[in-house]
Amino acid sequence: MMRSAEEQRNHDLVMGLFAEVLNPLDSSAVDRFIAPDYIQHSRLAVPGRDGLKAFLDWAKGANPDAVHDIKRSFVEGDHVIVHYHVRRTPDDPGLAVVDIFRIENGLIAEHWDTIQEIQLEGPNPNPIF
Amino acid sequence: MMRSAEEQRNHDLVMGLFAEVLNPLDSSAVDRFIAPDYIQHSRLAVPGRDGLKAFLDWAKGANPDAVHDIKRSFVEGDHVIVHYHVRRTPDDPGLAVVDIFRIENGLIAEHWDTIQEIQLEGPNPNPIF
Repeated sequence: MMRSAEEQRNHDLVMGLFAEVLNPLDSSAVDRFIAPDYIQHSRLAVPGRDGLKAFLDWAKGANPDAVHDIKRSFVEGDHVIVHYHVRRTPDDPGLAVVDIFRIENGLIAEHWDTIQEIQLEGPNPNPIF
Repeated sequence: MMRSAEEQRNHDLVMGLFAEVLNPLDSSAVDRFIAPDYIQHSRLAVPGRDGLKAFLDWAKGANPDAVHDIKRSFVEGDHVIVHYHVRRTPDDPGLAVVDIFRIENGLIAEHWDTIQEIQLEGPNPNPIF
């Protein structure tokens, strides 16, 4: 049940990505977290590390005050999973997102996500997070 | 990096849920996997174990040949994460889904999901999974 030292490093790396890249939408910090041969599976970005930088620059222009609010995160081996809430503007119901990252040689080498627009109406009164 | 015995049991429980409940859409098998006081966060179902049964019965009527194709899964402690592809019909591009389950006392006690309709068009030629 205890994280290994390597698992803790992998989790810390991804928390750093959120703190220094995703939340500030700072493409200039990408190379400290993302491998040169990064494999991108998200529908939002074009492939590779440069594709992520271009996406971040676009997002910073479109929604400079976007907030990424991490709800829970996990690590098993070389994979880190993060469940979070993106609000693009202060009154945005937002997106529910799960990111899965694979870490290799101390950098993020591969990424998958699933992204759901939050509907405020529906049959379930429980919160989505 | 090794799963504890409890982690392996938790992962096995969720794999059983996919094999015996979700893939066959069999509400009669729910009670062997889901706690009586199940906390449902999915937007698709009404709260509780009975809400899950009602959702499964509805889904079996709507899409009896739906397939849940697990792509990768993880466990850390009492949480199990599953990334999978749902195809409701044979030619459905389908849904990309991540489920997060919390296990307590040998049953699934809480569930979150994010669900994304797969768009075949887009800027990224890499597969979503």
